[in-house]
Amino acid sequence: MAMVCISDFEAYAKKYLPKIAWDYFAAGADDCTTRDENVLAYKRIRFRPRMLRDVSVMDIKTKILGSEISFPVGIAPTGFHQLAWPDGEKSTARAARAMNICYIASTYSTCMLEEISAAAPGGLRWFQLYIHRNRAASQQLVQRAEALGFQGLVLTADLPYTGKRRDDIRNGFRLPPHMKVKNLERAFEGDDWSEYGLPPNSLDPSVTWNDIYWLQSLTRLPIIIKGILTREDAELAVRHGVQGIIVSNHGGRQLDEGPATIDALVEVVEAVRGRVEVYVDGGIRKGSDVLKALALGAKCVFIGRPALWGLAYKGEEGLQDVLRILQDEFRLSMALA
Amino acid sequence: MAMVCISDFEAYAKKYLPKIAWDYFAAGADDCTTRDENVLAYKRIRFRPRMLRDVSVMDIKTKILGSEISFPVGIAPTGFHQLAWPDGEKSTARAARAMNICYIASTYSTCMLEEISAAAPGGLRWFQLYIHRNRAASQQLVQRAEALGFQGLVLTADLPYTGKRRDDIRNGFRLPPHMKVKNLERAFEGDDWSEYGLPPNSLDPSVTWNDIYWLQSLTRLPIIIKGILTREDAELAVRHGVQGIIVSNHGGRQLDEGPATIDALVEVVEAVRGRVEVYVDGGIRKGSDVLKALALGAKCVFIGRPALWGLAYKGEEGLQDVLRILQDEFRLSMALA
Amino acid sequence: MAMVCISDFEAYAKKYLPKIAWDYFAAGADDCTTRDENVLAYKRIRFRPRMLRDVSVMDIKTKILGSEISFPVGIAPTGFHQLAWPDGEKSTARAARAMNICYIASTYSTCMLEEISAAAPGGLRWFQLYIHRNRAASQQLVQRAEALGFQGLVLTADLPYTGKRRDDIRNGFRLPPHMKVKNLERAFEGDDWSEYGLPPNSLDPSVTWNDIYWLQSLTRLPIIIKGILTREDAELAVRHGVQGIIVSNHGGRQLDEGPATIDALVEVVEAVRGRVEVYVDGGIRKGSDVLKALALGAKCVFIGRPALWGLAYKGEEGLQDVLRILQDEFRLSMALA
Amino acid sequence: MAMVCISDFEAYAKKYLPKIAWDYFAAGADDCTTRDENVLAYKRIRFRPRMLRDVSVMDIKTKILGSEISFPVGIAPTGFHQLAWPDGEKSTARAARAMNICYIASTYSTCMLEEISAAAPGGLRWFQLYIHRNRAASQQLVQRAEALGFQGLVLTADLPYTGKRRDDIRNGFRLPPHMKVKNLERAFEGDDWSEYGLPPNSLDPSVTWNDIYWLQSLTRLPIIIKGILTREDAELAVRHGVQGIIVSNHGGRQLDEGPATIDALVEVVEAVRGRVEVYVDGGIRKGSDVLKALALGAKCVFIGRPALWGLAYKGEEGLQDVLRILQDEFRLSMALA
Repeated sequence: MAMVCISDFEAYAKKYLPKIAWDYFAAGADDCTTRDENVLAYKRIRFRPRMLRDVSVMDIKTKILGSEISFPVGIAPTGFHQLAWPDGEKSTARAARAMNICYIASTYSTCMLEEISAAAPGGLRWFQLYIHRNRAASQQLVQRAEALGFQGLVLTADLPYTGKRRDDIRNGFRLPPHMKVKNLERAFEGDDWSEYGLPPNSLDPSVTWNDIYWLQSLTRLPIIIKGILTREDAELAVRHGVQGIIVSNHGGRQLDEGPATIDALVEVVEAVRGRVEVYVDGGIRKGSDVLKALALGAKCVFIGRPALWGLAYKGEEGLQDVLRILQDEFRLSMALA
Repeated sequence: MAMVCISDFEAYAKKYLPKIAWDYFAAGADDCTTRDENVLAYKRIRFRPRMLRDVSVMDIKTKILGSEISFPVGIAPTGFHQLAWPDGEKSTARAARAMNICYIASTYSTCMLEEISAAAPGGLRWFQLYIHRNRAASQQLVQRAEALGFQGLVLTADLPYTGKRRDDIRNGFRLPPHMKVKNLERAFEGDDWSEYGLPPNSLDPSVTWNDIYWLQSLTRLPIIIKGILTREDAELAVRHGVQGIIVSNHGGRQLDEGPATIDALVEVVEAVRGRVEVYVDGGIRKGSDVLKALALGAKCVFIGRPALWGLAYKGEEGLQDVLRILQDEFRLSMALA
Repeated sequence: MAMVCISDFEAYAKKYLPKIAWDYFAAGADDCTTRDENVLAYKRIRFRPRMLRDVSVMDIKTKILGSEISFPVGIAPTGFHQLAWPDGEKSTARAARAMNICYIASTYSTCMLEEISAAAPGGLRWFQLYIHRNRAASQQLVQRAEALGFQGLVLTADLPYTGKRRDDIRNGFRLPPHMKVKNLERAFEGDDWSEYGLPPNSLDPSVTWNDIYWLQSLTRLPIIIKGILTREDAELAVRHGVQGIIVSNHGGRQLDEGPATIDALVEVVEAVRGRVEVYVDGGIRKGSDVLKALALGAKCVFIGRPALWGLAYKGEEGLQDVLRILQDEFRLSMALA
Repeated sequence: MAMVCISDFEAYAKKYLPKIAWDYFAAGADDCTTRDENVLAYKRIRFRPRMLRDVSVMDIKTKILGSEISFPVGIAPTGFHQLAWPDGEKSTARAARAMNICYIASTYSTCMLEEISAAAPGGLRWFQLYIHRNRAASQQLVQRAEALGFQGLVLTADLPYTGKRRDDIRNGFRLPPHMKVKNLERAFEGDDWSEYGLPPNSLDPSVTWNDIYWLQSLTRLPIIIKGILTREDAELAVRHGVQGIIVSNHGGRQLDEGPATIDALVEVVEAVRGRVEVYVDGGIRKGSDVLKALALGAKCVFIGRPALWGLAYKGEEGLQDVLRILQDEFRLSMALA
């Protein structure tokens, strides 16, 4: 089977991943309306292509928070990469470095931050943080990430509680015994580690905007806030001193029937008025989707499920295939638009 | 089979109820357009979720007409609960009391009002009334309900004649011999009891707004009018001194191709301007639907078919399962939105 | 099989009519977009139902051009009723008289006008006219109709040439040998009678508005023009002295991708401003469709295919069944709206 | 099987062409959204038909750039006609001349320009040009075409690089060994002729508006620019002195998710204000589509895939069948609208 477009990797992953892993990655909240809208909303946007420009040389490099990347696509934070490929996040880190793009490693990684760093020294990486009730554990994570050379701290804002993903409930989703949320292995006590590899209710639902100040007191890393969908929250984010905003609905896994991210991007970009960088994730399936997001004001996009499908196909190499296809398609759609 | 969401109960009921009972509960008028629109209209409404609020403690209790309920969901009046579960409305009353919510018992109950009261003493209940040509029968019903401690009188306004439900006609729908419209057993004469358990044409199609005054003369119970879909009728209802309005199209069983209730709610709330409480029924399938209705001005929602599916699953216990799922989903969607 | 709604008759006809007859009745031009839009457009219209009116007595009688009919539905002109039922238009005439409604007999009838008249003396009937190149034949038809007591002359304006109905071409549609366009049997010479029972090109494509004056010179019957879809043509029709307008797109059999008739009705009614009566045909499938058309300004609607399905079911009796269902549904939807 | 409408030819071609050839002709870029939108956009446009005009005589002849054609449809440039029929472009040329319409021969023809000319002397033909890196080859092509009596030069503006057509990649599309891009056989060196019959990267992606001046210096033929989709580019085209504009998105084969051509036509016509002739291709499937395009300001339409389906059916004769059907449908829809 030739891998021609991102959907080919999706089909491969659906066919070859264990059902419980496929379902976990594919899951959306409730009716999965928002998950699917993320993709459909891109299809409703139309180009107005212009002709007869010299497109013999095109530069698709860009910078995010001052670091150069080879093209405006990065890896969004997603959990449990070992469910997709034995080497897990180490493969992800290697592929990202090989392609010279940014990889946002998740709190819910199945590899230690130290392993991730060692796997691809010198790669551009940010660290994604959930704030747990055990604040000391969160503080320690931030400081480990900074010490290991991660260059940004991504705070996820849309998960005070976990969304209701029906298939995970039906499957009784648990991590296989040999996988762990390794970075938090010693952070919690008790016997029940049933909620996505951690004890239930370990997340802190009392987090507010003021906790941005707390994070700023812990680290000199730039803070990027992930999960913003409205102009009001975008304004609050800027006022609290973040360096970047990722417009995201968590891949449609949290609140169902909110806006598609590409639609929300427009109002966030308008509210931010260039004061901080704005990124977007969710629903990217083609190089032309990247171009649309950039045309609507995003500085870079991040891919979640497509990266996992690439891993599921051939680990580091498969993820590079995915990224190269997006890169080629992005360059071609720039030339044609 | 895990019961994860309301659709699971629907699938169960469809599979295990006798076809004639399933068809009766599922029936919509004519092409069932409005029945289905009730559900689809919710899906067209989008949240604008806000982030980083402290949602560690949430209070979802509320009051309707002064009575506290555990969350803003009640049981809409529907007929013939024995078709779903042998104990019929007695089970419904028990489940509603256990969950501390309001149950509106129907004129078309298969249990006596006295049995319903005795099954769950102290529960919050309203009584739903159709006005029959035999006005004395209607008067007696109202006064029995008041004497038994029902705390509200719900007048259904949208059934001067019964809507055309094709499947009931095809099935030749009749109550099984051992079931009766018990509260009206001695109210009518004659041999033909073929129209939904009563003689044909027993309903009074000459009822007008002035009959509200007649009801007020019979009882001190607050009167809630059910079946309002326009701002004009909402204004008339307020002027005639009702205490509450249920925006309803009878689950799409009366006039087909009227508005979805969640759409009609907006204009009714606007017309009422807070002078009386406004509720809505029809199309609620998820906790987030409840949140949407409240955000659009409803004080409480009522569920019809989902309650019957719960009864069909496991009687009182199944209905509690349905209510608990809605409660959990409602709380979660509040936290995430 | 219980005949509960009009679709039941459609299903019956599709199952039991010869394919060539079913295809001929069902045919729409080109992609059948307009044929289907006629039906779909009704479904997009929403009622705003009002409650608590005294609907114990309802009068659904009305008048068209001064003649009383039992309810505002008539039989639109359609050809070749013998394809549906052996007695053909004689059955149609009997059913229409029995129901006390208006039947518009087509030029393309398979019974003589004299037979139609004799079958149901005293029934309210109009005669539908195509103008042929052989004007003498058309003149004779008009005068026969008037002499036989037809009370209106319906000029079809939308058929200078016959629309392209793919299935008729594929089927090589011809009338069976024992059927004839009887009213024109002696009007044309030559051997080739292949175009819907007449010689090709017998219709006169040079007809203009001035021919209304010619018709007025031939008869004292009121003239109703059928096939108007725009405000401009409605204005012209009024100025040329017609007594009525039937908004029609010939059941979607002529120009594909014009407007649905219920949509065109609105602009025609607005342009006419009550100066002449306006009717509509196309897409009526339920009693509530009739109510919608009346609410939008039609004085009466005419049904085409549903009448043929009734004939196909049981001739005169089947057509009465269809009309009675529409009448009951119309009365019920009035009561509920 | 009767060939009644254009879709019949499509079905035939799909059934009888080798899959690789069908896929090549059918291919659209990426998700084929724009390819399909070209057709769907026509279906969203509604006629406002007028009645009772004398349509006994209709003249459907017109002129493009001063040359008379029998009706406003021409053959758009498409490649590799030998994939559809052994005689390839020679058959196309003969059919176009027989119908007295304009045929735009593609650079990617599988017959020599000289063969095309010789096959149908005196026919109205334009030549379609891609500009290659080897400018001398392009210059020579233009001058050969002019010398052979081609009467217009069509510059394709939307192919600096070839669009991504997934099925061609999956099929490893190559021309069969006995077919060649004959007009460029000696223009390029090297061994790899894998990109649609030419060496990869032979097209010049540095072409700009100034190259219009270069073309004007090479030839006295009128220049028509193909691939314009915006008012801005239409204005530029007029300012650079072209004689005609073909609104086109290359059949949806280049940039996916741009506008449908019939939608883009409106803004181009408005911008051009009659200064040059405007044509459109893409999505024409019925005679009424031609009428819609003309009503929206096109002087003539060009058909791509339908011509290939005609060739695939019966070569020159099949293409004439397609054109005759479009002509009949166009005339009929004019009469009915």
